[in-house]
Amino acid sequence: MKKFEEKTVASQSIFQGRVISLKVDDVQLPNGEVAKREIVNHPGAVAIVALTDEGKLLVVEQYRKALERSIVEIPAGKLEPGEKPETTARRELEEETGYACEELTYLQTFATSPGFADEVIHLFVARKLTPLQEKAALDEDEFVELMEVTLEEAEAMMASGAIYDAKTAYAIMWLKNQK
Amino acid sequence: MKKFEEKTVASQSIFQGRVISLKVDDVQLPNGEVAKREIVNHPGAVAIVALTDEGKLLVVEQYRKALERSIVEIPAGKLEPGEKPETTARRELEEETGYACEELTYLQTFATSPGFADEVIHLFVARKLTPLQEKAALDEDEFVELMEVTLEEAEAMMASGAIYDAKTAYAIMWLKNQK
Repeated sequence: MKKFEEKTVASQSIFQGRVISLKVDDVQLPNGEVAKREIVNHPGAVAIVALTDEGKLLVVEQYRKALERSIVEIPAGKLEPGEKPETTARRELEEETGYACEELTYLQTFATSPGFADEVIHLFVARKLTPLQEKAALDEDEFVELMEVTLEEAEAMMASGAIYDAKTAYAIMWLKNQK
Repeated sequence: MKKFEEKTVASQSIFQGRVISLKVDDVQLPNGEVAKREIVNHPGAVAIVALTDEGKLLVVEQYRKALERSIVEIPAGKLEPGEKPETTARRELEEETGYACEELTYLQTFATSPGFADEVIHLFVARKLTPLQEKAALDEDEFVELMEVTLEEAEAMMASGAIYDAKTAYAIMWLKNQK
């Protein structure tokens, strides 16, 4: 879909970081005028709606520096270069929750902030969870706390603001529709 | 919520743009180690689940340079400095759809990309829509096309990838739960 396409007439690289990079593009608009677009490039991520046999949802609490607070989210993590999203999903589930899953189903992909970033999240549903004998190591700068919550508890956490991010909000609404 | 707090020990401003800014913070982790956090600051935004009297959803197609394609989204827009989200919601609805609303209800706030950005979206539900006599002007670099879709059509657009962003995906799941 290319309606209202904005052609790049110049592109300036501003920053190359560990996680994201930033560029400013000059684009030609459909009316011929030129405008600037500030664009964050991100490797993409996965998130996992992990359900126990009792139908509880696995969530992790972690500090999010960008928000200067900790929030409760479904397990998630960035794609490594060349990695298949399903592989990332299994790895992040194991690292963040200590569970492996026998059943992993693709659910949905969406862009998180299309106004300024190319990040997309691939959502998976994980079922038939089995605790790992040896817990997988988190990234060295990652600290998370695992919880198992019912749908009702998750909704209450969203109402209170403890759950506060788009992917988890989507997951809860999706789960509610499965009932 | 401050669990696993990451205290800032240094902060470097990288870029100040028209829409976003970027900084890199050195943070002290719970284990005493220091790590870098790349953080995008964004003014925040609103999005509107606008429903016609027949229960159809207003969506707009627009080109998203970050994704290099056009996608179909619920109407949305950035907060101006000091602006109340409800004011932004009414303005963006009028600009992007040509409708005013008699009824505007707050629904939910969520962070879109808490791993690297502070952007939050305030979601509103707009009902009792009335067409404006004089269409409000879009931003000068903004080109959108309005559509009215049923929930079933919106779900089909999500399945095909025409709808591809988190806020619209959430809106569709929320709407499905209202049936």
